[in-house]
Amino acid sequence: MAIITLTTDFGYKDHFVGAVKGAILSSLPEVNIVDISHAISPFNIQECAYILKNAYRSFPAGTVHVVGVDSEISPENEHIVVCVDGHYFISANNGVISLITSEVKPEKVVEIHLPNVNSGSFPVLDVFTQVACHIARGGKLEVVGKPFQSLKELKDFEPRIIDNGKTISGNVIYIDNYGNVVTNIQKSLFEAYRNGRNFEVIARTTIINQIHKSYNGIVNYDLDKQQRKGPGDALALFNSAGYVELAIYKSDLNSVGGASSLLGLNYRDTVTINFL
Amino acid sequence: MAIITLTTDFGYKDHFVGAVKGAILSSLPEVNIVDISHAISPFNIQECAYILKNAYRSFPAGTVHVVGVDSEISPENEHIVVCVDGHYFISANNGVISLITSEVKPEKVVEIHLPNVNSGSFPVLDVFTQVACHIARGGKLEVVGKPFQSLKELKDFEPRIIDNGKTISGNVIYIDNYGNVVTNIQKSLFEAYRNGRNFEVIARTTIINQIHKSYNGIVNYDLDKQQRKGPGDALALFNSAGYVELAIYKSDLNSVGGASSLLGLNYRDTVTINFL
Amino acid sequence: MAIITLTTDFGYKDHFVGAVKGAILSSLPEVNIVDISHAISPFNIQECAYILKNAYRSFPAGTVHVVGVDSEISPENEHIVVCVDGHYFISANNGVISLITSEVKPEKVVEIHLPNVNSGSFPVLDVFTQVACHIARGGKLEVVGKPFQSLKELKDFEPRIIDNGKTISGNVIYIDNYGNVVTNIQKSLFEAYRNGRNFEVIARTTIINQIHKSYNGIVNYDLDKQQRKGPGDALALFNSAGYVELAIYKSDLNSVGGASSLLGLNYRDTVTINFL
Repeated sequence: MAIITLTTDFGYKDHFVGAVKGAILSSLPEVNIVDISHAISPFNIQECAYILKNAYRSFPAGTVHVVGVDSEISPENEHIVVCVDGHYFISANNGVISLITSEVKPEKVVEIHLPNVNSGSFPVLDVFTQVACHIARGGKLEVVGKPFQSLKELKDFEPRIIDNGKTISGNVIYIDNYGNVVTNIQKSLFEAYRNGRNFEVIARTTIINQIHKSYNGIVNYDLDKQQRKGPGDALALFNSAGYVELAIYKSDLNSVGGASSLLGLNYRDTVTINFL
Repeated sequence: MAIITLTTDFGYKDHFVGAVKGAILSSLPEVNIVDISHAISPFNIQECAYILKNAYRSFPAGTVHVVGVDSEISPENEHIVVCVDGHYFISANNGVISLITSEVKPEKVVEIHLPNVNSGSFPVLDVFTQVACHIARGGKLEVVGKPFQSLKELKDFEPRIIDNGKTISGNVIYIDNYGNVVTNIQKSLFEAYRNGRNFEVIARTTIINQIHKSYNGIVNYDLDKQQRKGPGDALALFNSAGYVELAIYKSDLNSVGGASSLLGLNYRDTVTINFL
Repeated sequence: MAIITLTTDFGYKDHFVGAVKGAILSSLPEVNIVDISHAISPFNIQECAYILKNAYRSFPAGTVHVVGVDSEISPENEHIVVCVDGHYFISANNGVISLITSEVKPEKVVEIHLPNVNSGSFPVLDVFTQVACHIARGGKLEVVGKPFQSLKELKDFEPRIIDNGKTISGNVIYIDNYGNVVTNIQKSLFEAYRNGRNFEVIARTTIINQIHKSYNGIVNYDLDKQQRKGPGDALALFNSAGYVELAIYKSDLNSVGGASSLLGLNYRDTVTINFL
């Protein structure tokens, strides 16, 4: 059974998600519709790009991903299908796929052209569901679009290497459900520049000298509970997506706080790694 | 495979939605359960009616829609099944279907009567799931209920025509995920009274002289970006559901604000259209 | 088709839930994945235990329940599978299943051991999905783990009987979407000690002398609407999960308030029942 995923900024209250699922099921009764997220901050391409990159890889090749963020068509925001890494992404050409296409070369990109469809204020319903069902049925991209060369790229995701590789200057690109703060510094980049040196991760007034592989990496289970680091302590780790992340162990934004609130970190704030 | 949709005010945290899905799958393993929304404001019939009307139409005929808002049975709130427009709605008789039945005459309405079921504080679990599975299996309405004539109607949804059709006086009936403000004035009503006249849409201190078909209808792509209208500007449009809506282009309630916060509009506030 | 349910504190925005579903579908294309909740408060075992207990029972025997709360492995937090009441629970050994195992003796408990898997910061993705698919395929528990005896129990859930059974002293264990306040006093315990006596339920300054079976149990439909109890009035009931609950009739935390806000009740606050 074909899989169609949905990633949007529609939220969980309005009729938008339900309407989209109904339209898909009306066109293709035997399909597995999976929600990736509908809680993208409205029009936030960066957030959507991060979520999409880290979710799509778990799905089998051939999965069709519908991306409904900033999707109104305009002369500057075409409707496209990108086939990359064996997956199909249907979205507007606003850079939302560029975290994926910067790492894997797209196999095919088409601009959507459906002769009898009028794309109004709800293109995910009117256009994307039709294209998704066509692809899920095994249809060819050529039938729904024409070759397209002008794929937009997001530029904000690249950290800078400065001082001859002594410093990596990154930024906060995502804050998760626990208030954990994700930077744009990937483990592979860190390792490429480290050369066995010690280092410090600096985020505002917080300095951390170790990067763990798991959140409880800061807990020394050989010590008594009172003497250990534990809930409320800050740490850095390579998160499961491969990025350097700052976290508070066992955080909760609604009670004790998280890294974003306790360390005072917001989107786009600088996080620096100095090799010593 | 039969489709059962769920529209409730249960929220996304409690066990209610999970329990309902488990009960449906226990009774009918091969069924497609689709969430329309579980974020209806508690006991808000108007909100639920708007969401339901605009979601159900995308589903194929024969879909069974379970509506779990204000569903405790009482002498004044019967449990009913409404068959209308080829769809089945299982709900309490509280007016939640009346946005649909005001436009399409119901084919059949029954009051639910299950001899061996005790309807307590969780009727969606105890009663509605059983009725939904019965219908989804192709069972007849007569088996689960008896004919019912007293379908309740919501009265709040009708705008008033005043001054011999010179003015339509409507109200805010829904505020969506982007803070967009939906009125009860439908495009069809607007067109029926316009007669080619110019008009102004008035909402508190905001006056708008144009109604677009898409959000980016206010953007003139021939101009340079600095000279265009764009993010942050107010507009009116006929939304995808066919209602007059006031919006802020590329709004976000959690950062820049939306029409509800920036124009100061709440549920039931008046929105007036004057033909000039 | 096998059923795998998910109960986590991942929230609805991040890529975590989508990634987990993708991994399950990659391994087992024909499976029914059902969300119970992803809005557990981070690391809140008690909340998760309550939700899980009240949702799982609606699912058919053989269902596999993946529990992703506080699931990082450590010497003090093993990964386990508990087979109890015909259902399979995959979780960390943090007490999250103990509301169920305190009432039904587990049939089998194993500690998960997957030879080739490295459990990092996302064990639900790396470990639990594999185990879930193995069980859903009909695989034996012995293949993925070894017998385990040290199942942790939550102690906070037991009310105390004092003054020779004249008083039951309980606590708030859950606050639901409507602000309704659930105590740890079960109907069966109440009935066992009541002996036909009158009683009072005391929660801070609120005293209630009746426990209803439904929320609208406080409404006397024989009276005129102005003379009845109704929206805004406090009540106690045995909720659908079998616990004593304090509620405000037709409450809404975002507008009129709910029992938690209006009666001033929080997690762990005392609720007392005195038999008179």
